Amino acid sequence: MIRIVVDAMGGDLGSTVIVDAVKSFLKDNNDVEITIVGKKEELSSLENIARVVDARDIVPMQAGALEVMRLKDSSMMKAIKIMKDEQLDAVVSCGSTGGFLSAATINLKMIPGVKRAALVAPFPTQIKGKNVVILDIGANNENSAEELCQFALMGRLYSKAVYNIETPNVYLLSNGAEEGKGAPEVKEAYKMLEKMRFEGFSGNIEARYALNGDADVVVADGFTGNVFLKASEGIAKMMSGMIKKAFKRNLWSKIGYLHVRKGMKEMSETMDYKSTGGAMLLGVNGNVVKAHGSSDARSFYCALRVAKKLAENDIVNKIKQGLENA
Amino acid sequence: MIRIVVDAMGGDLGSTVIVDAVKSFLKDNNDVEITIVGKKEELSSLENIARVVDARDIVPMQAGALEVMRLKDSSMMKAIKIMKDEQLDAVVSCGSTGGFLSAATINLKMIPGVKRAALVAPFPTQIKGKNVVILDIGANNENSAEELCQFALMGRLYSKAVYNIETPNVYLLSNGAEEGKGAPEVKEAYKMLEKMRFEGFSGNIEARYALNGDADVVVADGFTGNVFLKASEGIAKMMSGMIKKAFKRNLWSKIGYLHVRKGMKEMSETMDYKSTGGAMLLGVNGNVVKAHGSSDARSFYCALRVAKKLAENDIVNKIKQGLENA
Repeated sequence: MIRIVVDAMGGDLGSTVIVDAVKSFLKDNNDVEITIVGKKEELSSLENIARVVDARDIVPMQAGALEVMRLKDSSMMKAIKIMKDEQLDAVVSCGSTGGFLSAATINLKMIPGVKRAALVAPFPTQIKGKNVVILDIGANNENSAEELCQFALMGRLYSKAVYNIETPNVYLLSNGAEEGKGAPEVKEAYKMLEKMRFEGFSGNIEARYALNGDADVVVADGFTGNVFLKASEGIAKMMSGMIKKAFKRNLWSKIGYLHVRKGMKEMSETMDYKSTGGAMLLGVNGNVVKAHGSSDARSFYCALRVAKKLAENDIVNKIKQGLENA
Repeated sequence: MIRIVVDAMGGDLGSTVIVDAVKSFLKDNNDVEITIVGKKEELSSLENIARVVDARDIVPMQAGALEVMRLKDSSMMKAIKIMKDEQLDAVVSCGSTGGFLSAATINLKMIPGVKRAALVAPFPTQIKGKNVVILDIGANNENSAEELCQFALMGRLYSKAVYNIETPNVYLLSNGAEEGKGAPEVKEAYKMLEKMRFEGFSGNIEARYALNGDADVVVADGFTGNVFLKASEGIAKMMSGMIKKAFKRNLWSKIGYLHVRKGMKEMSETMDYKSTGGAMLLGVNGNVVKAHGSSDARSFYCALRVAKKLAENDIVNKIKQGLENA
């Protein structure tokens, strides 16, 4: 039985979508037990739930680490505490990213030897059905070369465990493919990975090729990774808007849409970052899933699926062992 | 009369496309004089040209600064030298980016007071016809806060001069909109711009909103800016591929395409980075335009247009004056 604790509050769309997501998820996964934390009266329609824990405070979306730690009675802090005290398998929240990541890191502690935790998300690629794991997409504002090397290791272990890839191709995100390209930390990390004969290390990759399907893992510092993530989201949204406009032009274009509906739907699904459910915080002593702040029921459902996958694959212990053997 | 010198060699598609571009450009612009440098026999079909300068060496695409400087008889080095010695108005090349930028900087020298040159390109935005100026998109591997502030100034002056925007909105590219977000240099630059009451400074902007039309200028260090540029290119290409696939699905989808052709064409044109012609190197003592390595005739034509615009607007002197008054 996999035991997950859910923070039901703090998302843009309120607790209703979380309740809906939990209901569907429990229906589809009878090997999962869910504890939910939030305003009791908003969670009363839930059935088959392990436990409903009342929490009156909600962490504001923009809250930083200190503010979250002070809000001890918030649903977010209570969820993290319950996960820790009762040794549950995963915690999921769609509340303030900064607050959640900091509070989770401080409470659950890092895996011994990990210097910095990294936020990880799978991205779609040009190859249908293939994802690439990119980290760090925003847990840090800067990272040293040594930290980048640890991200490479965590990314490889994640890709192996979750996607069953025997030897994942691991790249450093850079401004050119050749050795010697990149910010100083990237150059240094390149040398370090070469020196340690890092399994699967394939050199630098430019941002334009990161999603072409060659890479299984792409490593970046948290600031650059975040820019990559959000630039991709921005362009995808901009182009989707233009496509919609093109189809709405006149009656003929509307008829045109009917003929390509299926292909367009496939594209939207591939490009939809919500279908990934959110990001995972790798490096802390426990499975921490940050769902999108704007999660709807489907998106939060996917985040729950990610949490289950992490727990099933025992990713925390794999990282522990990986670091010991490094 | 505006006098431009063109390096005809070193592009992926050879000198033929450059010759075609120069021919069309001269036909459309009778106030421009062009000197062209390259293998004489490949340039013989050009008419109305100010001068054809023979050069036997071609700078290889991957050449670094040192290699370029050594290739004194290369078309690239000769073009830069001619620009300098004869005080021409602009130089355009589609050869090795690193080599061209270094050679131009070393030969033409920086504008007094400029710490680092920055590569600038206009990006399309969600608002039809509106561009946003983003810099540095790749001249540097890292930048200090002070350098970011200079980029903000150069970007503002460029936006004013070329797009006639009275007070351009200038943003710092960051991982969050709030003050205090970002890599250490971004945080520091934020404080510095606030302190100096930088005209038009509007705070941080996330990569996903950089192209929504609010920003006139977006400032980033060269590494991050390059990741932004290439992530955008990558996603745009990936989505275009998916759209094409959707339309090629079957006979009906092909018919569907006929109905939306116009809208789709508009999108391709907006998203086509080739239509911007290339990037400009701001901060050096002269107008330096780097056309895409894969330039076709149309793209190189656009690069020539950019060179003309820079010269007409006397951007070098505007930056000189701007720095003196800062």
